[in-house]
Amino acid sequence: MSVLTRLELAKDWVRDAGNFLKENIAAPLEITEKTRYDDLVTNFDKEVQEQIVANILHHFPEDKILAEEDEEKIKFDSEIPHLWVLDPIDGTTNFIVQKDNFAVMLAYYEYGVGKFGLILDVMKDKLYWCDSHKAFCNQKELELKERPLAQSLLGVNSYMYRSNSGGLLDLSHQTLGVRIIGSAGISYGQLLEGKIIGYFSSLQPWDYAAGSIIAERIGYVTLTISGESPHFNCRERVFTAPSYLISEIQKYIKK
Amino acid sequence: MSVLTRLELAKDWVRDAGNFLKENIAAPLEITEKTRYDDLVTNFDKEVQEQIVANILHHFPEDKILAEEDEEKIKFDSEIPHLWVLDPIDGTTNFIVQKDNFAVMLAYYEYGVGKFGLILDVMKDKLYWCDSHKAFCNQKELELKERPLAQSLLGVNSYMYRSNSGGLLDLSHQTLGVRIIGSAGISYGQLLEGKIIGYFSSLQPWDYAAGSIIAERIGYVTLTISGESPHFNCRERVFTAPSYLISEIQKYIKK
Repeated sequence: MSVLTRLELAKDWVRDAGNFLKENIAAPLEITEKTRYDDLVTNFDKEVQEQIVANILHHFPEDKILAEEDEEKIKFDSEIPHLWVLDPIDGTTNFIVQKDNFAVMLAYYEYGVGKFGLILDVMKDKLYWCDSHKAFCNQKELELKERPLAQSLLGVNSYMYRSNSGGLLDLSHQTLGVRIIGSAGISYGQLLEGKIIGYFSSLQPWDYAAGSIIAERIGYVTLTISGESPHFNCRERVFTAPSYLISEIQKYIKK
Repeated sequence: MSVLTRLELAKDWVRDAGNFLKENIAAPLEITEKTRYDDLVTNFDKEVQEQIVANILHHFPEDKILAEEDEEKIKFDSEIPHLWVLDPIDGTTNFIVQKDNFAVMLAYYEYGVGKFGLILDVMKDKLYWCDSHKAFCNQKELELKERPLAQSLLGVNSYMYRSNSGGLLDLSHQTLGVRIIGSAGISYGQLLEGKIIGYFSSLQPWDYAAGSIIAERIGYVTLTISGESPHFNCRERVFTAPSYLISEIQKYIKK
């Protein structure tokens, strides 16, 4: 089946997941700690993942899926013909505490090449997505808003910012300041709308898969702090920024 | 004229200012630096201030006004019978860069006692306000959502957070994390909706006047880092938090 067919199905699955979360936004949550006290998962992360995985496998039983809440995860591999990367609720802490500022994210790859990504800002009803060429927020086509670094804001991870990890604090001094949102998906949404010029965080593949594909369509590049392509196999310090700013950013951002 | 008459007029003025800013959101801006490169003011800050000051003086020519963009500011004084405190655009950097996440704020005092405050989140059409007893977001009455500190998020100022000013970084380690929004008004909005449990920043009186009055109605307290009432005459490190958490917070927050 064509990529566009997969894209249209994926939009439905992600929107269905968003509607399910909105309908249950006041429901009591079962909250479990994962790696540490501030790394949380709820029954809704698991339920959304099960729904979307079931949808994918119903239509495409041979496809592979890399999903955040799987205990045994498959490895990202450029030999896989059809690979989905899923973060059922990105910004789980915001989901729990704020009931806002969380996202459902899904990306699709063929032989290691990102074909499309989807980020749903659930409470604001904003679906960021792309096909092979263009990026959109709902029906509106997105475009890069060029600004000088000195007249821009950065989206950052709190630890990297305060500890100057990778030189991020030094970089921030070249800008108008930083914003901390607590969700990679919502941060990518702000980046795609031009509200922040770059996003810097310590991320797993499912945190940056959809955002990096969509942002690439309008002139953004996603790199590790060391300047390489992300490896898609572990947590890494990663940033997404417009290609016209990369060399300026790399004066401050260092391994 | 009664306080309630003043409140109804003030709501109209603030909403009119918000509509004016929304209508002109794509207009070119005249941007000027104030104290430093990231302390900006636009022609719209000045125009909104002129409009609201003219409205106040038209109805109440004897009232006093402490307004952010005045070069010569009057002093907050508990002997003034009728005092307005105005921030025409709070979060001017967000207004310039993001075209979102900025607020119009107005507070009213009689003999030093806050009678009401108004915060308009312009782009989200949310007016936070209070009368002498209750607080509202648009027509919805607000109430304190009690959460343990360890299950909460903090709104913070980036400098205070990263430099542990006042012990803020230490305090943040007792919580699920921090959020940086770049506008006192929008941060107070998140606090009033329970999305952050406390807000900590280095603020001028017009930054905290409206927010502290509204938040007080639902059980919040506004203090300086040293634990005093704010002095309303200079920039100070100030925080607003629920009264049930003050003693726990003050184990970490220190002069």
